[in-house]
Amino acid sequence: MTNVPHLSSTNFDTWLSQIDAFLFDCDGVLWRGNAAIQGAKEAIALLRSRGKKVVFVTNNSTKSRDTYVNKLVGQGIPAAVGDIVTSASACAAFLKKMDVQGKVYVVGEEGLAAEVSAQGFENFGLDHNGKTTLPHPFVVDPNVGAVVIGLDRAISYYKLSYAATCILTNPGCKFYATNNDPTYPTDGAILPGGGSCVAALATAVGRQPDAIIGKPNQALLQTILSTHGLNPARTCMVGDRLSTDIEFGRRGGLQTLLVMSGTTTYDDKASITDEYQRPDFFVEDVNVLNGLQ
Amino acid sequence: MTNVPHLSSTNFDTWLSQIDAFLFDCDGVLWRGNAAIQGAKEAIALLRSRGKKVVFVTNNSTKSRDTYVNKLVGQGIPAAVGDIVTSASACAAFLKKMDVQGKVYVVGEEGLAAEVSAQGFENFGLDHNGKTTLPHPFVVDPNVGAVVIGLDRAISYYKLSYAATCILTNPGCKFYATNNDPTYPTDGAILPGGGSCVAALATAVGRQPDAIIGKPNQALLQTILSTHGLNPARTCMVGDRLSTDIEFGRRGGLQTLLVMSGTTTYDDKASITDEYQRPDFFVEDVNVLNGLQ
Repeated sequence: MTNVPHLSSTNFDTWLSQIDAFLFDCDGVLWRGNAAIQGAKEAIALLRSRGKKVVFVTNNSTKSRDTYVNKLVGQGIPAAVGDIVTSASACAAFLKKMDVQGKVYVVGEEGLAAEVSAQGFENFGLDHNGKTTLPHPFVVDPNVGAVVIGLDRAISYYKLSYAATCILTNPGCKFYATNNDPTYPTDGAILPGGGSCVAALATAVGRQPDAIIGKPNQALLQTILSTHGLNPARTCMVGDRLSTDIEFGRRGGLQTLLVMSGTTTYDDKASITDEYQRPDFFVEDVNVLNGLQ
Repeated sequence: MTNVPHLSSTNFDTWLSQIDAFLFDCDGVLWRGNAAIQGAKEAIALLRSRGKKVVFVTNNSTKSRDTYVNKLVGQGIPAAVGDIVTSASACAAFLKKMDVQGKVYVVGEEGLAAEVSAQGFENFGLDHNGKTTLPHPFVVDPNVGAVVIGLDRAISYYKLSYAATCILTNPGCKFYATNNDPTYPTDGAILPGGGSCVAALATAVGRQPDAIIGKPNQALLQTILSTHGLNPARTCMVGDRLSTDIEFGRRGGLQTLLVMSGTTTYDDKASITDEYQRPDFFVEDVNVLNGLQ
């Protein structure tokens, strides 16, 4: 087993010359919660100044792409909606592609509901926030044709029960997860991620989701490559999580760069056993790129 | 593969003569939510009139044994605390047996907290019900030495985050689950069970619990058999769930009786592949016993 090499001043220029485009994860790469990672805006500017295309690809389903534009711009990183793919926007597009009929029940946050609405689906779930008492009898809207679930920091027994009952009792009701990240890196704490919410619901209904939309889903990657006209061999995925970012890139034939500013520990990096989760290079954080130019 | 035989008037007397004691599951067997299952009190009275000992063994961790006494008596079934084992009381006894040091963080309901307190452990968690905002920085009590989790109908992102952070950052912090039932049969609905809450936390911390206390845990069975001086070959487990009740009995060499009034469907019963989950007999519900005497 080989160690993951560090990107360094001796290999930086060669490495960069072989890349036309970067797919950037955000949480744990450009920021942690509300705290920007030092040098992130300069690193993106550096890559763009060298003619590289940058697309932001996040499994975070809690914010809409519009909110991401504001967050990126607010951090000094120019961006447009077309540069951003979130697991929420991809999930909403997937609902459309699958021609889901009926209403959508959302166990998630405003960003997910906004993207589902933007694709024209009547949806609800956020209005159940704060409900603590289950009515008796407990009945759900029979017109719910799909449940979508992602990170929901207002998750409750009521919402889990409502979602589970839709899946179990509405004939043909689909069960889609935006992503399966077990944790979520914030400023100062590693907290439960979308995968934690998904696990609760999957256990209650006795089956895994019909689809998990976000990274490392290869259908998502193919859509991104084709939308932006990217050559996978000359595209590099930059991310902090082995099981999503790195596997997403490796399975699709991309180059990969791991940053240690998010969820992956040095112990994790030293004990990679799945070759699809072994990055080509690593750096401590994106600020290192600024020192290598 | 043989079908599960129905207990009938032709085999009832022989069957009963080979049994000295019954372990009765409760939810889905004696009641569903607040609705008693018809004939439950008469069935227990019948068995007792034939000289059989009856012990109540439930994976429900939400109620203390005192509350169970009241519920049983209220339904016309005489019972004492010593006749009842809940996954909450067993979990609290296990904390004592393992000599857990420090405080206990409870992701569960009042019954679990009451049993943990009764064993002398300082504990908290219920006081976090309704908290929606995570403070920054997010720090947890470093004196928490164990997290216990069961069904928590006030589960929240705050409580999951607190529990996960204790397990991940307090050195040596134990992670115990009262039970792993994926669902919970109530009157009119099958809702998420303790296992759903456990799955969310296990996903967030990246490991399974150090112990799952309730059925089908065989250490629990051995404690019950020894406490009540029971001969396993002449003891019958009565329950509604294959993966907990029936497996609990079969692995311990007990006789087993499945009731169809809880979580197991006729399709489930027809497609049993794990021999440890194949009951000796089934009845539609405990009321059938009254018609066979």
